[in-house]
Amino acid sequence: MDIIPFKEIVDKYKVVFFDAFGVLKNYKGLIPDIEKTFDYLREKNIEFYILTNDASRSPEELAQSYIDKGLDFITAEKIISSGMLAREYLKYKVNHGTVAYLGTEASAHYVETVGLKTISIRDIDLEDENNHLINALVMLDDEGFDWKDDINKAINLLRRFNMPVIVANTDSAYPVSKEEVAIAVGSLADMMEFVVRKTFIRFGKPDAQMFNFAFQHVHKNGSIYDKNEILMVGDSLNTDIIGGNKFGIDTALVLTGNTLPKNALIQIESSGIIPNYMCDSAVV
Amino acid sequence: MDIIPFKEIVDKYKVVFFDAFGVLKNYKGLIPDIEKTFDYLREKNIEFYILTNDASRSPEELAQSYIDKGLDFITAEKIISSGMLAREYLKYKVNHGTVAYLGTEASAHYVETVGLKTISIRDIDLEDENNHLINALVMLDDEGFDWKDDINKAINLLRRFNMPVIVANTDSAYPVSKEEVAIAVGSLADMMEFVVRKTFIRFGKPDAQMFNFAFQHVHKNGSIYDKNEILMVGDSLNTDIIGGNKFGIDTALVLTGNTLPKNALIQIESSGIIPNYMCDSAVV
Amino acid sequence: MDIIPFKEIVDKYKVVFFDAFGVLKNYKGLIPDIEKTFDYLREKNIEFYILTNDASRSPEELAQSYIDKGLDFITAEKIISSGMLAREYLKYKVNHGTVAYLGTEASAHYVETVGLKTISIRDIDLEDENNHLINALVMLDDEGFDWKDDINKAINLLRRFNMPVIVANTDSAYPVSKEEVAIAVGSLADMMEFVVRKTFIRFGKPDAQMFNFAFQHVHKNGSIYDKNEILMVGDSLNTDIIGGNKFGIDTALVLTGNTLPKNALIQIESSGIIPNYMCDSAVV
Amino acid sequence: MDIIPFKEIVDKYKVVFFDAFGVLKNYKGLIPDIEKTFDYLREKNIEFYILTNDASRSPEELAQSYIDKGLDFITAEKIISSGMLAREYLKYKVNHGTVAYLGTEASAHYVETVGLKTISIRDIDLEDENNHLINALVMLDDEGFDWKDDINKAINLLRRFNMPVIVANTDSAYPVSKEEVAIAVGSLADMMEFVVRKTFIRFGKPDAQMFNFAFQHVHKNGSIYDKNEILMVGDSLNTDIIGGNKFGIDTALVLTGNTLPKNALIQIESSGIIPNYMCDSAVV
Repeated sequence: MDIIPFKEIVDKYKVVFFDAFGVLKNYKGLIPDIEKTFDYLREKNIEFYILTNDASRSPEELAQSYIDKGLDFITAEKIISSGMLAREYLKYKVNHGTVAYLGTEASAHYVETVGLKTISIRDIDLEDENNHLINALVMLDDEGFDWKDDINKAINLLRRFNMPVIVANTDSAYPVSKEEVAIAVGSLADMMEFVVRKTFIRFGKPDAQMFNFAFQHVHKNGSIYDKNEILMVGDSLNTDIIGGNKFGIDTALVLTGNTLPKNALIQIESSGIIPNYMCDSAVV
Repeated sequence: MDIIPFKEIVDKYKVVFFDAFGVLKNYKGLIPDIEKTFDYLREKNIEFYILTNDASRSPEELAQSYIDKGLDFITAEKIISSGMLAREYLKYKVNHGTVAYLGTEASAHYVETVGLKTISIRDIDLEDENNHLINALVMLDDEGFDWKDDINKAINLLRRFNMPVIVANTDSAYPVSKEEVAIAVGSLADMMEFVVRKTFIRFGKPDAQMFNFAFQHVHKNGSIYDKNEILMVGDSLNTDIIGGNKFGIDTALVLTGNTLPKNALIQIESSGIIPNYMCDSAVV
Repeated sequence: MDIIPFKEIVDKYKVVFFDAFGVLKNYKGLIPDIEKTFDYLREKNIEFYILTNDASRSPEELAQSYIDKGLDFITAEKIISSGMLAREYLKYKVNHGTVAYLGTEASAHYVETVGLKTISIRDIDLEDENNHLINALVMLDDEGFDWKDDINKAINLLRRFNMPVIVANTDSAYPVSKEEVAIAVGSLADMMEFVVRKTFIRFGKPDAQMFNFAFQHVHKNGSIYDKNEILMVGDSLNTDIIGGNKFGIDTALVLTGNTLPKNALIQIESSGIIPNYMCDSAVV
Repeated sequence: MDIIPFKEIVDKYKVVFFDAFGVLKNYKGLIPDIEKTFDYLREKNIEFYILTNDASRSPEELAQSYIDKGLDFITAEKIISSGMLAREYLKYKVNHGTVAYLGTEASAHYVETVGLKTISIRDIDLEDENNHLINALVMLDDEGFDWKDDINKAINLLRRFNMPVIVANTDSAYPVSKEEVAIAVGSLADMMEFVVRKTFIRFGKPDAQMFNFAFQHVHKNGSIYDKNEILMVGDSLNTDIIGGNKFGIDTALVLTGNTLPKNALIQIESSGIIPNYMCDSAVV
């Protein structure tokens, strides 16, 4: 599999889905010259969306972080986050009462916008006689709570009351600097699920629901696209590429993030996850 | 959670998704009086679809088995099978060349309808110099091949050539009589995936792509339904109910199949998979 | 399988291995009348040992907790703990330099007795140029550290330096009161292992090494016992009973802990883990 | 980690455990010059044993295959096989009645030597009223039965009757030629265990019981060795090396089998499984 310039492939498509971290930005900020890509997309009239496993903030706040970096055309409606799927779930399947959460207050504010009351696990007293009014537990972020105290409290709440658990970010870890990673809420959820032996509901790439949600967004304004007119661009074989492949759209692996240039071919071979294209970066 | 008559809940919805085995039929044939349900749905103008993890036959052949039993209104367009998703994948992501398969010839004929050539693993010679022309392996059925010879041949093919593997039925086992089960192709795929350490692509409930495919079918004729107007009816918490819940539609557990009446509440409690309703059967 | 009085079975054996929690004691203290069992064992000249998945303290300290409750014949040499196996590993396989740990200082003191220096992950600076002198990471207890800060620091240490990770307690959770459990260090280790994708080394029931270590202790004073002269008594099918069975000794399930009387037969049936005997308790 | 000549390390030890396949022999026959190693061991008075995950034949038959190749000093008492552990289990824990098996007749003959009657799953009729007399199922070999018919029959037997299942070879696959592998009975067992959701008992490296069984054999003739006087020599990090490490003995990785010279350091780094030594081969 050869490395092809991104520019050569992108204009075969009418819509591009970008992963955020490792494709548009990294721990240092924006990928250099990435704004040229968006200039080119507008020039060629190619639509784009950003698909991100993130439930720590609202789409508006996620968009603002791009606007602050000068990409002011990345507005909230360009963002498809796993947090949006969790919010949809709560809207359709919980839709009343109180939802307990693990995460920051900011992450909780966003899910409140469907009209639910939220309560941090931190503020729950296991002996409170109103705990049966809690209709779901949603895991939003690895920050904003004491892991030991609040994870233990959460599993005991789940042992006493049967409720759905929604995991709004499937990632197991995320980079915090060139060399360091941090455990993400997806890993904490895996641990809790194993201990309580219940089935949690997860939202985020590579799950098809994420791609489908994006697919529906693309069609909001009345345009009709076929799957073969859409390209998914990502840096991770096991989320972006396998997810895009399974959904039936074309995929391009870029080497600016998780997949290092020296390992890309080995990883494609050993995983059996084969992108349609491989590019140095998403910069045109 | 109380047991509610199916009739009391079904007319709150405009569309009903039914699981097939354990809901409409079992090893003995149709669930007695199930035809009354479909009479009622037509009377009330409620649409219905059948969602089934089955890639052994085409939708036409699957429909015929209902027609043969007297349910002649169950036509091919009422069927949403995991085999249809596998066929979609091949259409969008493979779309040329030859596809190797494990399954019966009948199962292969159906995926051929996208214009691909198929070859049974049985007929492959590992030393054939044209094997690099095989673009995918698709696992369709647990029948139609010699497990030992052909599974071993398939894993050695995958070790030599990197190609996507599509598993067209996620079930691990299926009932063959009142007391007996048989291992399904999903379990064979799990075993092969572990041995070759590559990532396979699976289609079937509880995966969201199955529900989404059905959701799109419902809208084919131009009607627009909201997710809260759709009910999933199933006998299995860990496929039908969790899948429906995650997709955001309401769910009804019926006790004519996998989930025995005496165990239903215990299983809901221990799994954390909570249907909206529990009914003795899908018979009105 | 009938419930048999413990007295009827125990005197067929020359050695008895007891699990601690759920058999000899529970969250409230000693199981009432359990001292009679030890009186009877001495009367009948039956040897005993206590096998416990615990690395939080030394055998001396573990024994002291029994002595404090009046069982002064439970001395350190009667205790076989998973912490002792971890200490053995460090003695044979690390044997010099510094060992990093997650746990309390008390748990670290015990492993230091093989002549190793220990350092809490809390006190490690990831940028310290002497970190390459750390020869192993040992996970001893779920207490004594900040889960978020120190687990994240530990995984980044493991990403930079290749070293064995020893998990000195395989339990996933432990009871802290009649209704509540807490996540044990075994679950934290599972999460970390998944994130760093390295193979950790685990000590504790049901692993054969625990039973073998006890078997060797029995023979320290020169007596020779056959495996069929030893009985394992435990409250958990998936640690005590499966471990004893696999090691080749007889097993008795008691119903004073993890396995509730109403569920015992169902769990034996559904797990396929079959004890030789089932007793209400280990009290004679 | 440097590559050291095997001769330089082996005479630091009083006992050597060898893996068989990939260390002493491969698909073509004996590793060239391996007989020199055994000459050297005898000259230096170093004891040796062969530890092999194999239950397809008795130790006598396994030894004969070496004798036939000219290594006539490899007698049955030098062989420690996972089949011997399975036989021990049956001796201590089943010890009467009939044992059903999946495997060849030759593999069944060996376990019969503890005085049990055996019956091939092939010859079982699920409706036979004497099936309750079957006291265990033992999985011995991937050959000697029809995978589809007999695996399906076995899982239905396990659903009707609760009995221990013993897996006498934990390997998931084994090499059959330079390029090809075959699925081993360990993988079939994993699949069956997942479908019936019972806990099977597995014997074989890297499990500690295998090393302990060998350790006891070493001491049969009255000699006393410390663990640090024993070296495990193997070609697989995830069986031989991790198993030896955990048992507390020194380990040497050789590059004549599973672990290719070009990948050895990468695999040590990525797995976290660190041998004490790395050698080109076990030839002196």
